Amino acid sequence: MNHLLSMNELSLNDIQYILNKATDYIKGRKEHRMQDFMVANLFFEPSTRTKFSFEAAEHRLGIKALNVEGSTSSLQKGETLYDTLRTLEEIGVSAFVIRHPQDRYFDGLAEKVNVPIINAGDGCGNHPTQSLLDLLTIQQEFIVLQGLTVVIVGDILHSRVARSNAEVLRKMGAKVLFSGPKEWFVDEWRKDFIPMDEAVKTADVMMMLRIQHERHTKSMLLPKEEYHQKFGLTVEREQNMKSHSIIMHPAPVNRGVELADELVECQRSRIFKQVQNGVYIRMAVLKWALTTNQEAVANGLFTKKWQSS
Amino acid sequence: MNHLLSMNELSLNDIQYILNKATDYIKGRKEHRMQDFMVANLFFEPSTRTKFSFEAAEHRLGIKALNVEGSTSSLQKGETLYDTLRTLEEIGVSAFVIRHPQDRYFDGLAEKVNVPIINAGDGCGNHPTQSLLDLLTIQQEFIVLQGLTVVIVGDILHSRVARSNAEVLRKMGAKVLFSGPKEWFVDEWRKDFIPMDEAVKTADVMMMLRIQHERHTKSMLLPKEEYHQKFGLTVEREQNMKSHSIIMHPAPVNRGVELADELVECQRSRIFKQVQNGVYIRMAVLKWALTTNQEAVANGLFTKKWQSS
Amino acid sequence: MNHLLSMNELSLNDIQYILNKATDYIKGRKEHRMQDFMVANLFFEPSTRTKFSFEAAEHRLGIKALNVEGSTSSLQKGETLYDTLRTLEEIGVSAFVIRHPQDRYFDGLAEKVNVPIINAGDGCGNHPTQSLLDLLTIQQEFIVLQGLTVVIVGDILHSRVARSNAEVLRKMGAKVLFSGPKEWFVDEWRKDFIPMDEAVKTADVMMMLRIQHERHTKSMLLPKEEYHQKFGLTVEREQNMKSHSIIMHPAPVNRGVELADELVECQRSRIFKQVQNGVYIRMAVLKWALTTNQEAVANGLFTKKWQSS
Repeated sequence: MNHLLSMNELSLNDIQYILNKATDYIKGRKEHRMQDFMVANLFFEPSTRTKFSFEAAEHRLGIKALNVEGSTSSLQKGETLYDTLRTLEEIGVSAFVIRHPQDRYFDGLAEKVNVPIINAGDGCGNHPTQSLLDLLTIQQEFIVLQGLTVVIVGDILHSRVARSNAEVLRKMGAKVLFSGPKEWFVDEWRKDFIPMDEAVKTADVMMMLRIQHERHTKSMLLPKEEYHQKFGLTVEREQNMKSHSIIMHPAPVNRGVELADELVECQRSRIFKQVQNGVYIRMAVLKWALTTNQEAVANGLFTKKWQSS
Repeated sequence: MNHLLSMNELSLNDIQYILNKATDYIKGRKEHRMQDFMVANLFFEPSTRTKFSFEAAEHRLGIKALNVEGSTSSLQKGETLYDTLRTLEEIGVSAFVIRHPQDRYFDGLAEKVNVPIINAGDGCGNHPTQSLLDLLTIQQEFIVLQGLTVVIVGDILHSRVARSNAEVLRKMGAKVLFSGPKEWFVDEWRKDFIPMDEAVKTADVMMMLRIQHERHTKSMLLPKEEYHQKFGLTVEREQNMKSHSIIMHPAPVNRGVELADELVECQRSRIFKQVQNGVYIRMAVLKWALTTNQEAVANGLFTKKWQSS
Repeated sequence: MNHLLSMNELSLNDIQYILNKATDYIKGRKEHRMQDFMVANLFFEPSTRTKFSFEAAEHRLGIKALNVEGSTSSLQKGETLYDTLRTLEEIGVSAFVIRHPQDRYFDGLAEKVNVPIINAGDGCGNHPTQSLLDLLTIQQEFIVLQGLTVVIVGDILHSRVARSNAEVLRKMGAKVLFSGPKEWFVDEWRKDFIPMDEAVKTADVMMMLRIQHERHTKSMLLPKEEYHQKFGLTVEREQNMKSHSIIMHPAPVNRGVELADELVECQRSRIFKQVQNGVYIRMAVLKWALTTNQEAVANGLFTKKWQSS
């Protein structure tokens, strides 16, 4: 069984399968044999992009969805997440899409359920479909990642995206550097620090992160304008970027903080392109999680770490 | 592109197209080529009637829906409505159905998005699909509006319906008068005031409005029974109505306030008929917003004020 | 019209029709002519199992669903349940699935609406689809109920299931006994009391109930461990059960209270089987409520107590 919990469990073959499948969907490929699948979307945190991106992907594949909100489910009556998932399994669900505020909520769960979990974000931990859509966006632009310089900027401490992305980008041959307030840095990444004014001149990809205001204590936060001047992508800095370089951001953008308002939809911004790619990536991930098991056994391509039985 | 923001932007041709299309749907006409459309319903206020009326219309047209609730979306994280809409656009949405507590929330938005906005009610402002279903209900009854007397009664100050309806009814040839507490009157409409006891004798259509308790300050409100006696449609007043006259109300009715409990489903009440018509009107509006662009260019029939590109 | 309000209104013929139909669905029977139906699911209490079980049943029958949550509907504006239902009726809904905190919320409603109400649980009262899925689970196991001993254990006072089940099990020939804290007993049932240590030796079916913590005053509740030792199905007690006996529970289970954690998925537990059966029962109930009217008139099989016109 193919759980998608974090980028770490994915082999390069898995990643390539998913990116190729997404590209097929972009070109118009349809799936005709997925109508009998039912998927449960469990979102225990507010979300627009990820939630509706998955719903749209399910619609396009003809998959039926059960939308479980934390606030109206039996979790309110003290039911454990395990019991909720087992219940949904017996109800006939073929995969779980889960967004949860707790880091690695899936530990101890993934081994016990009988259908795949697709992690749609866990606390400050992982967000693998975001990483995959980022990869697709970079691949569309530069074809190969070998030799590219990607600078990840900002709230690395609270970013699901930073952790997932940095490792896989390096595995695929890109050079990854970091910028932003040093106190937000994970220790191991300090050696790869680059100041913003240099970063904009070097980067092929400026990968801006969202400041997770809801996860910071107040004292950690600079005034917005000060943050923007020191660590943000200002209109001035953008003018020093290389002609072919692109700007990415997982959104929602704090306009005028991480990024100048004017840059959100500028020529080199791929922010809304990322959203678009997200739907195709999620179609591909659902296809991979729901149907590649047999193929996988047949062609030996896929990691099966999480196969439960 | 066909936004539906308020009745003002609709030409009489647009209105006629929508009423005719709705009538076709009532007669059983099916649409077979709308399955690829996906629509986002964004409801930022509680609603049963309008929300489920749109959902039912989408079901009947075979359109897929993404249902965005204010409380579970990224608007919670401070995202602007514009960014939410642009995101949904990139996710593949072909139209927005929006109910929002703020008057004219769409100003400055409609020009910037690339798919139509269908206004499902803005604050105390507009509610064009309600106006259209009211028109359809009157037309079903009297065929032509020319020469009819419509009396609009009650909370004109907070009524989306009053404003939208009065203008278009006059445009279509009806005489429109107003009744209810004078302090709730918009200045320009005081000259058309008629006391309730006269109104019931004159009107072909008694168009009762809902008192928007949630929008009034307490001091503005009479005790319910007193309001009913002074300005409501009581059982006694109903007996003075002309034999063919009808009662309308957008609902939910405050039973015993605007309208005597016994009258809600009486012979001359069209209140539940209005609800029924609402689904067909919304099917017609979706059809109009999603597909008439080319036809419009071809036959020059439709106003294109809001065409964005 | 076939309302499903409580088990009392169902004839044994109705019950048999529903159980047979559910068994057909388990064997793979599909329905092809239900796509034009639209059903409203109205859940005014948190629920996972029942809500999503109905949604899954609707998906499998190809029925469209309108999901009304108490918190976002016009009930917030003070609309009565009757007006909400009548509105949904006019919107085109063919059946209501309702879960409501108030006992017998349907009294005075069922006679006035024109489409069937399927009761998905009312307060501490009835929960007929749960009773039906319990019956199906027992029937799958023992084929006939005649001569079986069923012990219902626990929170009888607040259990929808106990009341519905006891009567129908007896009607079908089973012996029904009760166990648990005596203060939670309905008077009429005290004569059928059996202590837990005897119960486990006698029962063919141990039907455990969920303690409805949310409905008890604090003073009524023992500490969990004490409850478990006195009235719960402990690991030790399970060892005294007859070899073929089964354990049932409507779930969500309070693990370590009604039931030892280890027993939830043990060999003789049918708890998740019950969940699975629930979807098929709800498909059968929807089929019965939506389409047996004509058949019923034709073959005289069905009770028509609630036929409204």
